[in-house]
Amino acid sequence: MVLKTLVIYDITDDNVRLRVSEVCKDFGLCRIQKSAFLGDLTSSRRKELVAALRKALGSNKGNIQVFVICEADFVLRVVIGEATVEEEEEGIIIV
Amino acid sequence: MVLKTLVIYDITDDNVRLRVSEVCKDFGLCRIQKSAFLGDLTSSRRKELVAALRKALGSNKGNIQVFVICEADFVLRVVIGEATVEEEEEGIIIV
Repeated sequence: MVLKTLVIYDITDDNVRLRVSEVCKDFGLCRIQKSAFLGDLTSSRRKELVAALRKALGSNKGNIQVFVICEADFVLRVVIGEATVEEEEEGIIIV
Repeated sequence: MVLKTLVIYDITDDNVRLRVSEVCKDFGLCRIQKSAFLGDLTSSRRKELVAALRKALGSNKGNIQVFVICEADFVLRVVIGEATVEEEEEGIIIV
């Protein structure tokens, strides 16, 4: 079953943060904020994503959280304001 | 019915960002990352939260997203790494 997967992260180091964002993109997630990605993944792909995120963070300082959001909950999502596109943040998509 | 509510934001202006974080705290949410709060809210409280967040952002640049996460989804949450506490970010709590 495919479910919405939300990844949010709080990483200070530029290189590590970039690596984590690349992992999210590799798994087909869309950037919805500077440090948040969202997309549809099967349970097995989500587990692979989590493993790849763990590897990308390694022993570096930082925090990554992965949430699953079912359709019933997802329709309740509220978006306030517009996406802020920053230099390294090309390709922000509000899905 | 009480449901987990997740607020993530991407706001450049320090004052606006602080105002948004204060709103989250006022509604009893706990900071789980620099720009992410989580907590239990009823549907009506969540609507009040959304209204307060809209007011806090006003016409300023920024993006706030509010997600509802049911218990069945919430147990699938994965947390990688430790919380990073920054200067203005005292009181980070992993719930």
